[in-house]
Amino acid sequence: MSEEKENIQFQLTEELIEQVETFIESHRDKELTTLLDEFHYADIAEIIDELDWEHAMYIIRLLDSETTSDVLMEMDEDIREKVLENLSAKEIAEEIEELDTDDAADILAELPEDRLHEVISNIEDEEHREEIKELLAYDEDTAGGLMAKELVKVYETWTVAGCLRRIRGQAQNVKRVHSVYVVTKQEKLIGRLSLKDLISAKTDQKIADIYIPSVDYVHVNDDVEDVAKVMAKYDLEAIPVVDDDKTLLGRITIDDIVDVLKEEADKDYQLAAGITTDVEADDSIFELTKARLPWLLIGMCGGLGAGVIISSFSGAMKMFPELLIFVPLIQATAGNVGVQSSAIVVQGLANDTIKGEILKRLFKEFLLGLVNGIAIASIVLLVSHFYFETAYVESITIGVALISVIIMAALIGTFIPILLDKKGIDPAIATGPFITTSNDIFGILIYFLIAKMILGF
Amino acid sequence: MSEEKENIQFQLTEELIEQVETFIESHRDKELTTLLDEFHYADIAEIIDELDWEHAMYIIRLLDSETTSDVLMEMDEDIREKVLENLSAKEIAEEIEELDTDDAADILAELPEDRLHEVISNIEDEEHREEIKELLAYDEDTAGGLMAKELVKVYETWTVAGCLRRIRGQAQNVKRVHSVYVVTKQEKLIGRLSLKDLISAKTDQKIADIYIPSVDYVHVNDDVEDVAKVMAKYDLEAIPVVDDDKTLLGRITIDDIVDVLKEEADKDYQLAAGITTDVEADDSIFELTKARLPWLLIGMCGGLGAGVIISSFSGAMKMFPELLIFVPLIQATAGNVGVQSSAIVVQGLANDTIKGEILKRLFKEFLLGLVNGIAIASIVLLVSHFYFETAYVESITIGVALISVIIMAALIGTFIPILLDKKGIDPAIATGPFITTSNDIFGILIYFLIAKMILGF
Repeated sequence: MSEEKENIQFQLTEELIEQVETFIESHRDKELTTLLDEFHYADIAEIIDELDWEHAMYIIRLLDSETTSDVLMEMDEDIREKVLENLSAKEIAEEIEELDTDDAADILAELPEDRLHEVISNIEDEEHREEIKELLAYDEDTAGGLMAKELVKVYETWTVAGCLRRIRGQAQNVKRVHSVYVVTKQEKLIGRLSLKDLISAKTDQKIADIYIPSVDYVHVNDDVEDVAKVMAKYDLEAIPVVDDDKTLLGRITIDDIVDVLKEEADKDYQLAAGITTDVEADDSIFELTKARLPWLLIGMCGGLGAGVIISSFSGAMKMFPELLIFVPLIQATAGNVGVQSSAIVVQGLANDTIKGEILKRLFKEFLLGLVNGIAIASIVLLVSHFYFETAYVESITIGVALISVIIMAALIGTFIPILLDKKGIDPAIATGPFITTSNDIFGILIYFLIAKMILGF
Repeated sequence: MSEEKENIQFQLTEELIEQVETFIESHRDKELTTLLDEFHYADIAEIIDELDWEHAMYIIRLLDSETTSDVLMEMDEDIREKVLENLSAKEIAEEIEELDTDDAADILAELPEDRLHEVISNIEDEEHREEIKELLAYDEDTAGGLMAKELVKVYETWTVAGCLRRIRGQAQNVKRVHSVYVVTKQEKLIGRLSLKDLISAKTDQKIADIYIPSVDYVHVNDDVEDVAKVMAKYDLEAIPVVDDDKTLLGRITIDDIVDVLKEEADKDYQLAAGITTDVEADDSIFELTKARLPWLLIGMCGGLGAGVIISSFSGAMKMFPELLIFVPLIQATAGNVGVQSSAIVVQGLANDTIKGEILKRLFKEFLLGLVNGIAIASIVLLVSHFYFETAYVESITIGVALISVIIMAALIGTFIPILLDKKGIDPAIATGPFITTSNDIFGILIYFLIAKMILGF
């Protein structure tokens, strides 16, 4: 693996991109290599993300495969797809050989089925090939899909001296050692050693006598979000992955968990904003429309639904036209309260701070809605009385309706995520347009029903 | 530090809480100690979070300070505050002595000023005391506020043998070594060694001959979010912190970055949902109202503003009452589009994928709004024509208004976060009720203005 460079100050400038493009177009390979050699592979990937794919190909073919494999891993998925399409199966296999098994499997998983097999059969190192094939079989959302086969393990029967000798060999293939896992002859995980302990131990001691028998681990089928939770909670930097028999299969390191956390956060944020698939500002208008239109259509149904309710009260509209002035207020408030309530529940569910007691929680939201409702209704009453000069009975109607709508919105916002969670559906989809839409309809309905009761039309 | 236990399966059950409470109330200290000894300190903290603070105090006083200091660190802030209030300055100082400097400073920062000084003067280890005082001086949002003083460093003049001997001593105070930093006599950071390299090197070699001169670092005043970005990008598990002279001041480890990322994600999510301060489902109704009411009031202003616009078109309301049926649709669509556009920009700004080119981005949003607008307007035209049986000219009005409103919402949603970012304000506050509210007003205004133009009232 390439060394980390002193590059905290790396800035992707237009001048830099232009310079790279000039070097490519005039085939000044030596100057280009010298220039790029100064950068970390993550920075080279950032540069490549700004180029078109032909230029990207040029750089990939120019640099040595040790660097380009890491660059491939870091670059934008769309450009990588293009680059991989234009490399031969043999060339891809050469890049793959340089990567850790988890990264290799991630890149291979993006290839079409037939090409995938072609590339795999071109991987020369048999052990690497078999390990990658094993990893490809796991679901990408499970511990198995995230783990790497690279790890340092010792058998309980070894001595410290033998251990140190063999670890040096194993450590060649492992970027960071973290923990040394201790296994039985049958590869069953029974404990761990820290490198620190190993350095301090006497050379003739048996591993069986010095290992730490307590070791955290996850099951190969565990959800990646749960793995992230465990590693964050216990401040772990690596965790071994085992199967039902506790056989050691691989390990997950914290840098992958950092990526998972960032992706999860982005996904939840986008869901809350009503975007269905992971998109970026740079994606095409077609991609962006595909991600955005579904939620807009759901929101449209809510808006039309509210319209149907309004038109069904067309008699009242003529008698009390002032009621319609407050439709946007009712709708906005119902939406905002619903989103707030659901966001708090969704986060509580994600952080495991919400445990059962649905009724208690709904009662609390009821009280909260009452407090907020009275505060807002009081202000609105003053505005409607003095500014809009609505009649006394209409003002009362609006106040009562506002409080009722806020309480309803808080209850729906709380109840729906909990219900989804119980049904095994990601409650994050509840926030955003989904809650807003249902609250649009129910809010307007409650408003007109209360108006009907009080004003008697 | 206590060992990690085999506790991946830890489940906080009501039976467990009840058992702990029974033991406390009947003073069965030995059974309680035996029970708690089986758990990781993060789990004990979870148990304590479910108890009242007197019971929490009981456990803190019962267990040894090595365990309780870690438990204190992990437990809920509100309960910790209560517990710290009821411990003497000397007792707190004893807990602090067991913690790493960064955790110690974090806990101390929560104490009131006078008590803080009292606790610090009770810390017996002078070096620890001075280090903590240094850390307390840094802003909590900077690298200085996140770093710990514990690290392993060697001078370039040492030999590998001398190095190994001294590292063993230093490593006693460091939970995980990660990298060994190489400094000059003047404490200037010049490079690093990996433990792996050190094990493989010959014992009589000089550090100056074997160290790796390229080393990533951050400046003590760098923003924590930037530190997180750098560590995630370069897959670093620890990074040294230096001052202007490159003097080595401390180091930041990835576990703290994981916490930063989670807090940032939670904060952004809550801002998007219109919650102003960090609250949890368990907080009091007063706390929750304080976090939620401000946004509801802003939303209320938007709703009332839209109401003012409607009432100012009261003549049109009487002539074309069907127009009012579509007010909820206009409002819902404007809100949804605005939130979607702003969310994409906010994420783009956070991930540095948006670089300048505001006009290009606005033009893209214009096109996107046009595509989405035409799609939605077509459906609405059909519904309004066949279901609501609106007149031909009214249908046209609604269609044109919808397209215009969607384009406007997309442009406002894109422009506001970029503007805030340029002004140095966190653009995340733009999503959620803020965008929705401004779009409520502008959406309704555009709707009626277009209706006025086409229908001519």
